[in-house]
Amino acid sequence: MSASVPDPRCLVMKTRFTERFQLKYPIVCAPMALVAGGLLAGAVSRAGAMGLIGGGYGDADWIAREHALAGDAVVGGGLITWSLDKNPQVLDAALSHKPRAFMLSFGDPRPYAAKIKASGAALICQIQRLAQLDLALEAGADVIVAQSSEAGGHGMTNRATITLVPEVADILAARSPDTLLLAAGGIADGRGLAAALALGADGALVGSRLWASRESLGNSASKEMAVRLTGDQTDRSIVFDILRGLHWPQDYTFRALQNTMTERWSGREEELLAVVDEERAKFQAALAAGDYSIAHTPVGQAAGLIRDIPTAAQILEQMDRQAGDVLLRLSLRT
Amino acid sequence: MSASVPDPRCLVMKTRFTERFQLKYPIVCAPMALVAGGLLAGAVSRAGAMGLIGGGYGDADWIAREHALAGDAVVGGGLITWSLDKNPQVLDAALSHKPRAFMLSFGDPRPYAAKIKASGAALICQIQRLAQLDLALEAGADVIVAQSSEAGGHGMTNRATITLVPEVADILAARSPDTLLLAAGGIADGRGLAAALALGADGALVGSRLWASRESLGNSASKEMAVRLTGDQTDRSIVFDILRGLHWPQDYTFRALQNTMTERWSGREEELLAVVDEERAKFQAALAAGDYSIAHTPVGQAAGLIRDIPTAAQILEQMDRQAGDVLLRLSLRT
Ligand SMILES: Cc1cc2nc3c(=O)[nH]c(=O)nc-3n(C[C@H](O)[C@H](O)[C@H](O)COP(=O)(O)O)c2cc1C
Ligand SMILES: Cc1cc2nc3c(=O)[nH]c(=O)nc-3n(C[C@H](O)[C@H](O)[C@H](O)COP(=O)(O)O)c2cc1C
Repeated sequence: MSASVPDPRCLVMKTRFTERFQLKYPIVCAPMALVAGGLLAGAVSRAGAMGLIGGGYGDADWIAREHALAGDAVVGGGLITWSLDKNPQVLDAALSHKPRAFMLSFGDPRPYAAKIKASGAALICQIQRLAQLDLALEAGADVIVAQSSEAGGHGMTNRATITLVPEVADILAARSPDTLLLAAGGIADGRGLAAALALGADGALVGSRLWASRESLGNSASKEMAVRLTGDQTDRSIVFDILRGLHWPQDYTFRALQNTMTERWSGREEELLAVVDEERAKFQAALAAGDYSIAHTPVGQAAGLIRDIPTAAQILEQMDRQAGDVLLRLSLRT
Repeated sequence: MSASVPDPRCLVMKTRFTERFQLKYPIVCAPMALVAGGLLAGAVSRAGAMGLIGGGYGDADWIAREHALAGDAVVGGGLITWSLDKNPQVLDAALSHKPRAFMLSFGDPRPYAAKIKASGAALICQIQRLAQLDLALEAGADVIVAQSSEAGGHGMTNRATITLVPEVADILAARSPDTLLLAAGGIADGRGLAAALALGADGALVGSRLWASRESLGNSASKEMAVRLTGDQTDRSIVFDILRGLHWPQDYTFRALQNTMTERWSGREEELLAVVDEERAKFQAALAAGDYSIAHTPVGQAAGLIRDIPTAAQILEQMDRQAGDVLLRLSLRT
């Protein structure tokens, strides 16, 4: 009869999220702008998690191409909300690919919620502050992503996963118990995944660790730099937004590996603006040359836990197995 | 035979830390300067965790009085290292009370390690950065505390528990496997404790949640304010250090609840210095009057998880039971 005893490691990751979306792993690959393309999102979905194509600032042609590259995998998508506000028609283009779920971050999701839900996609809303939770619930979000300051890419300072997730979980339990919750920020291995579940999340949204996969569109010299540096060596600033000419709303900053650009300009943004043409030329030349001592490597504190560049499927399988091992070991009180 | 089956909840929290120090709970009460007195440290130790008297900036009379108040409880102590550098003889006074463990934070522990260990106390070193780990290991620390930015009181920005703990755990596993590791920052309930263990810690150092206990020397109006506010409503700055005339080394900031003082002066410290006499008078009057819209409430992001002011024993019992429940539920893959 031993065949009927389930291997605990195979089942341990069953959560409300895996059940609702019929997944093997309680993991979503973040819709990383121009980095989570069809190859990555497709690989993630085929492996049993949820891949989201990172539509970012909304280029309909790029989105169409990447959906094609995802092949027959069932993927979702995402857009940056404040950018969508300036270019709302790209939502129709994105939804025309029949995403399974659609994620909005960095702005008010309410104007777009009805259209997204009418398309059949689940609505995922990423928040950085408790105050933003009200807007996401008003929008009828099916899934809330609580994003902390340790995250790679854009986000806010001052909230950390270990306090934000349980606090949001308690509010949801009281006000909207069917809304699912994902933790985002710093989750890069099975320990982080197990911690996210212990904190009350139904799963994790993973960016940096899947950026550092074979399938992501990140540059490989940049990925190698993330492997080398530690979690002490990232910073939040708007230095790279200034260099890229991106005008993000106040309070959003961008976490990337420290390099000569952040060392020189972080905290001196006014001075940077005074010489921005010159510095931007340098930055663009470095980007073209693959010189990440000047160009940006958009990874979070998880950098310290990134030690190789495997395939997305390997990353997911390892996170899941390690999380299961950790939880089993702790419950057996080693 | 069912009586011989251990209740998993009573044993789940057994870790290397509880075994090494013969404790019931894998929890240390932070040596919070002038707040963790003999009543709190004694209550924590009697309940089965480890209480540390917060010697802070080093007043030998205060330390003696608080050790007396701890009664027959076996407690430890702690001092702020950069302050000890200016007043090294206070270490003898502190060690004369035969602390079971002694914690140094915020500076180079090496000059004091031999004396602490010779006294029979275990040496606990709190770090905020990977670079500081080398000094702590050179000092021969028995226990490392990895303190993240979300913590209440003094600390640094930019590292979060969810990434710092596993990264330090990996370094210790490779370089010093017998050194124990505690997570500090944002751990205020059983979910946080379970998460800390999942991340690879042997236990947690808890500040804010035990500050908000009956036994701590915090003011009760201040504690009530922490109950009311959320985790979004804290800030790191040096505003209260300026107002208190404390000269901390660079890079250390102080996390407290936002109030009119931080709203006005955070990020405008130069301007504050220009009118410091006037503002300090206001601050001191508010402190005397118990007006925490102006005086500081030194709590971390855990504020959002603090909803009552129970006894220390109740806090510990509840954290432990909830952590056990969480881990059991996850391992049974509900
Ligand atoms: C390279 C990169 C690009 C990102 N781009 C986006 C984006 O376009 N839209 C978005 O909602 N989030 C974006 N994020 C943030 C993620 O959604 C997520 O919050 C974050 O990656 C989680 O933290 P982690 O990086 O520590 O896993 C990006 C993250 C990274 C690392
Ligand atoms: C009121 C208060 C006072 C503190 N004073 C000290 C101190 O004197 N020495 C020290 O090493 N840490 C001190 N800390 C920091 C704690 O050691 C610990 O890192 C922190 O409280 C953990 O985060 P938490 O507050 O979220 O539990 C203090 C913390 C608080 C809340």
